[in-house]
Amino acid sequence: MKIGIIGAGQLGRMLALAGYPLGLRFVFLDKTPEAPGGQVGQIIEGEFDDPAALARLAELTDVVTFDVENVPEAAVREIAEKVQFLPPVGALATAQDRLSEKRTFSALHIPTPRFLPVATREALELAVTQLGFPSVLKTRRMGYDGRGQRFLKGPEDVDDSWEALGRMPMILEAFVEFDTELSIIGVRRPSGDIRFYPLAENIHEEGILSYTRAPYVDGPLQDTAERYSRRLMEHLDYAGVLTIEFFVEGDQLLANEIAPRVHNSGHWTIEGAVTSQFENHIRAILDLPLGETRCNGHSAMVNLLGEMPELTDVLSLAGAHVHDYGKEPRPNRKLGHCTLVAPDSDERDRALSRLLELAGRSLR
Amino acid sequence: MKIGIIGAGQLGRMLALAGYPLGLRFVFLDKTPEAPGGQVGQIIEGEFDDPAALARLAELTDVVTFDVENVPEAAVREIAEKVQFLPPVGALATAQDRLSEKRTFSALHIPTPRFLPVATREALELAVTQLGFPSVLKTRRMGYDGRGQRFLKGPEDVDDSWEALGRMPMILEAFVEFDTELSIIGVRRPSGDIRFYPLAENIHEEGILSYTRAPYVDGPLQDTAERYSRRLMEHLDYAGVLTIEFFVEGDQLLANEIAPRVHNSGHWTIEGAVTSQFENHIRAILDLPLGETRCNGHSAMVNLLGEMPELTDVLSLAGAHVHDYGKEPRPNRKLGHCTLVAPDSDERDRALSRLLELAGRSLR
Repeated sequence: MKIGIIGAGQLGRMLALAGYPLGLRFVFLDKTPEAPGGQVGQIIEGEFDDPAALARLAELTDVVTFDVENVPEAAVREIAEKVQFLPPVGALATAQDRLSEKRTFSALHIPTPRFLPVATREALELAVTQLGFPSVLKTRRMGYDGRGQRFLKGPEDVDDSWEALGRMPMILEAFVEFDTELSIIGVRRPSGDIRFYPLAENIHEEGILSYTRAPYVDGPLQDTAERYSRRLMEHLDYAGVLTIEFFVEGDQLLANEIAPRVHNSGHWTIEGAVTSQFENHIRAILDLPLGETRCNGHSAMVNLLGEMPELTDVLSLAGAHVHDYGKEPRPNRKLGHCTLVAPDSDERDRALSRLLELAGRSLR
Repeated sequence: MKIGIIGAGQLGRMLALAGYPLGLRFVFLDKTPEAPGGQVGQIIEGEFDDPAALARLAELTDVVTFDVENVPEAAVREIAEKVQFLPPVGALATAQDRLSEKRTFSALHIPTPRFLPVATREALELAVTQLGFPSVLKTRRMGYDGRGQRFLKGPEDVDDSWEALGRMPMILEAFVEFDTELSIIGVRRPSGDIRFYPLAENIHEEGILSYTRAPYVDGPLQDTAERYSRRLMEHLDYAGVLTIEFFVEGDQLLANEIAPRVHNSGHWTIEGAVTSQFENHIRAILDLPLGETRCNGHSAMVNLLGEMPELTDVLSLAGAHVHDYGKEPRPNRKLGHCTLVAPDSDERDRALSRLLELAGRSLR
C-alpha cells in the first residue's frame, strides 16, 4: 500500500520511517527533491497547490495525508475527491484559521484565552479597549513558530503591529500569564477508537519550541485535556493524530491552538512511548488498531536549531537518540532533535541540562 | 555520510531505517532492486562478488558493512583496501567456516560441543567412532537456517548424509541434549567500548528461529555469556554487533555459532531496548558512543514465515509492532516479524501465545 504525503519536511520523513516497518511505501509532494522526506522516499516535485502534481500524487497512492498545515484548502478539496484524504479536510480548514479554531473551542466549551476577531483597523481599536493590555495580535492564517503575531504592551504598539502584520484579517487575544505550556496528543481511528499520550510540558524560546518533557504527571489535568481532545476529535470526525496546545493558569487549561497532525511536542514518543505518534498516525489513517501510548520511563526532547552539535557529544549522554533531518543549516532552523530517555525524572533532567548546554541553551 | 551495505535483505533494510535518523544515507549491493533494502535506499545491482559492483559501492560510500555472511572473502578483502570495511574481514572469515569458528572458541577457552574436522569419507568414519551417536554432520561453509546439516542417529545415516551434503569439507559435532538455546548480542566500538544486551531465549522449529523472548534473566549465565563474548570481540579486534548462539546444558553454556552482524534473535531490541541492535551496529562502525542496551519491559519476537497474518489481527495484540520486509511470500520464507513489549513476562507470554496462534504455531 502506498501513502502520499503533502510536504516532505521532517514530519513527513518521520512518518515514512515509522511506516516502512508496516510494509508501506511513501510518495511525497514537495518543492525540492532534497527535502528531508525526499531523502528516504519517492518525491513528486511541485508546489502544494499545483493541480498536476496533486493529481499525480492521488494517482500513485491509496491514502493521502500531510505534514504541513499551510496547504491551500481548495487544492486539498480537489485531491480529496480522487483519493482518501486524512485527517479530514474540515479539520485542516479549522486549524488553518485562528478565528475558526478559537470559535470551535468556544462552541465545544473548551476554555480558551479571550479573543476577538479583528477585520479592520477600527475593529482593532475596539478590541483593545475590550481585552485591554497586554494582548497578542495574530494573523488569522499562516502563523507558526512565533511568526504572524505581535505582543501589544500598550496603545503605542497598536499601529506598528497592525502594519507589520500586513493589515490582513486578524484576531486579538488577551495575554495569558501562564504557569507553563502543555500539549496533549490524541489519536483517533475512523471507526472511533481513541488513545492519548501523557501530557507533555513545552518550553518555547522566541516563539520556537526549545524543549519538551514527558510525562507531565498531573491526574486531573490529564483527564481534562483528554476530555477536551476527545470532544474535538469527535466533533471533527477525526482520523489521525491531533495535538492541542494549552496554557496552564492555576488549575485551568486554556486551549491555545490545535495541529491536525503529528507535532514537535510528540517527537519524544519515538523512543519514549511504546508506539510513536508517527506510527499511530499511520495506523489511524489506515484504520488499523492503534498502538499503546504508555511511556518507556521519562523523556525529554530538545530541538536542534541553527546548527547541529557534535554527534559524539550528544550521543555520549545517557539514553540519547539523535534525529538529523538532513537539512542545510540556517539560523534558528529546526535541523533535528535529540531525545533522552531515562528511568526516572531526576536522571532525565540531569542529562537534559547537559544537552541544552551542548545546544547553547539552558534549563528553564 | 554514506554507508554501504553488501546485501539488501531485511537486516540491511533495518540497518538503514535505524541509521536515517542519524542523518546517514545508504547504498546497498544486491541482485535485485526489489530486495527489502532497495525499497528504502539506493541499490547497486550485482552479485556479492562482482568486482565492478563492489568497486562502485566503495566509491559511493564512506564505510561498508554487510547483512549476509556468505560474501566471498576474496571479494571483501579487495573492497577493504578501498574503503573502511567493518566488522573486520578476519571476523567474517572466521564466521564463514564452522571449523575455524569452533577452533577459535576452543583457543579462547569458550566451551563448545565436541567436534572433529571431516575432510574425507574416511575421516568421517573415524570421527563417528570418536564422537558416537547421535551426532550432527555439517558442511564447513554456507550453512544457515538449518541448511547444510544432517542429524546422524546411527551408523545407517552416515552414507546418505555424506552424499546429501555434497561430499565437501565438513565438521562432525557431538549432539547436545540442550535444555534451551540462548544468544548474547554484544557491540564493540573500534576504540574498545563494549555493551551487551540481556540474553535472549530462542526457540527453533525445523532449523529456523520461530520465536525469541528477552530478557532471559539469569545472572550467572549473563555474566558467563558476556565474558565469552568480550573475549571473542577483543580477540577479533571487533567493531559492530556480534552474536553468539549457545546451547544451555545444566548451568553450562556451549557456544554453537557466531554471527558477525545484527541477528534475528535481536530484532526485539527495536522496541524492547533503549537502543536497537541496528542503531548500535551503525554507531559502532562509525566509532560513535554506543547506546544504552537496557530493556523496556519484557519482549517477544515472532518470525512471520511463509505468509503474513492479517495485520489487523496482529496489531490488536497489546504492545505489538509489525515489521513487514516487503518480500514475496514463499513457503517458510522470513517475510517479517512481530515484536511484543509488555510490562511483565506473564502479560508478554499471554500475548505471545495468541500471536503464535495467528502465525499457525504454538508456545513451546
